[in-house]
Amino acid sequence: MGKVTADISMSLDGFVAGPDPDREDPLGVGGMALHEWVFGLAAWREPHGLEGGTTGPDNEVIEEASANIGAVVMGRRMFGGGEGPWGDPAWGDEPWEGWWGEEPPFHTPVFVLTHHAREQLTKQGGTTFTFVTDGIESALEQAKAAAGDKNVSVAGGASVIQQVLRAGLLDELQIHLVPILLGDGARLLERLDADPNLLETTRVIDSPGVTHLRFRVVKRRTEAED
Amino acid sequence: MGKVTADISMSLDGFVAGPDPDREDPLGVGGMALHEWVFGLAAWREPHGLEGGTTGPDNEVIEEASANIGAVVMGRRMFGGGEGPWGDPAWGDEPWEGWWGEEPPFHTPVFVLTHHAREQLTKQGGTTFTFVTDGIESALEQAKAAAGDKNVSVAGGASVIQQVLRAGLLDELQIHLVPILLGDGARLLERLDADPNLLETTRVIDSPGVTHLRFRVVKRRTEAED
Repeated sequence: MGKVTADISMSLDGFVAGPDPDREDPLGVGGMALHEWVFGLAAWREPHGLEGGTTGPDNEVIEEASANIGAVVMGRRMFGGGEGPWGDPAWGDEPWEGWWGEEPPFHTPVFVLTHHAREQLTKQGGTTFTFVTDGIESALEQAKAAAGDKNVSVAGGASVIQQVLRAGLLDELQIHLVPILLGDGARLLERLDADPNLLETTRVIDSPGVTHLRFRVVKRRTEAED
Repeated sequence: MGKVTADISMSLDGFVAGPDPDREDPLGVGGMALHEWVFGLAAWREPHGLEGGTTGPDNEVIEEASANIGAVVMGRRMFGGGEGPWGDPAWGDEPWEGWWGEEPPFHTPVFVLTHHAREQLTKQGGTTFTFVTDGIESALEQAKAAAGDKNVSVAGGASVIQQVLRAGLLDELQIHLVPILLGDGARLLERLDADPNLLETTRVIDSPGVTHLRFRVVKRRTEAED
């Protein structure tokens, strides 16, 4: 049985996206800077169909995080939808096929948490998008079934990671802490209603521009506690 | 000329104190857990008049942070006052002499930022408390004069550190990141109105239970920019 993991870049002031995201700027104002450490890495470039790139500790962290993923769970906004069925006015009203292009970098089944039913999308390179309307537990159950012995990666955004933490369903969290200040946006570690001892640091790797903090989720709320 | 530095423990969700602080529980609900990593260290015990304690990387970090401090700046609440002249109802109304006892651990001049004038207090062991009513620039100026060639330590709380960051007067910030979640309380890195590139990581030291992140303040707002 694989683990349920989440890997996400966070600003020093706690945000995983900047303010005012829209279809042009889905990570919000300043949010792209959270990910600059990753774009030059070989382990990021390869699944995106790009050659070359740097190696080293950051690359090993990404290689490790990418290895052994059998399925992905993400939120509607990360797929590409907004507030409406497939977009609020800021994000466009028409159905569309997300940010991820014809050959998305996931190369596994992806389960998109949404309130709006939609037919499964099949993309090139092994990525399918399945739209799950009956909640985080169902999305994780389907993802685990698809992943088999491999891990399920909860890709984001903040709300989806909060949901898996609140539900006690996350095994491991890795925060890539980037020493920038966004000032506003989507905060990762809020609305958790959680035990202070929820997380135990299992590893810290630092390199210029990013510190990788890995945590084991040590206290898991059970349904009886809810 | 010394530097202006700040060293503070912060929860993973960004708080330097828990919610609902009062005179019984000045660090707020759960806030004491931010400091548990430090109480057993030799370098913390010695200035508090206690013998023994552990050594190692955490101890070296505290030794380094404590060395060469010539003066301290702190907020009214950290000294011991609340909202009223020397306390709101939750903190007690009468004037008092703070949390720090007859021989406070500072052993230097301490400048307390407040709106309420008060006579200087002289304690045993070289600590004096001087109450500064004309703002953070004045407090820092007085502290620098007192410190001479040594550093000025901005001890907290969150609001005072925010004020020195906003004023462009901090040289170095060290955050002791503790992997607990407080959920609410005093957030350190907000109301900064700052450039995202304000901070540059200069060192990371990790040990079980705490990760020490040291930053140089690289962009300083000038008066002309305000």
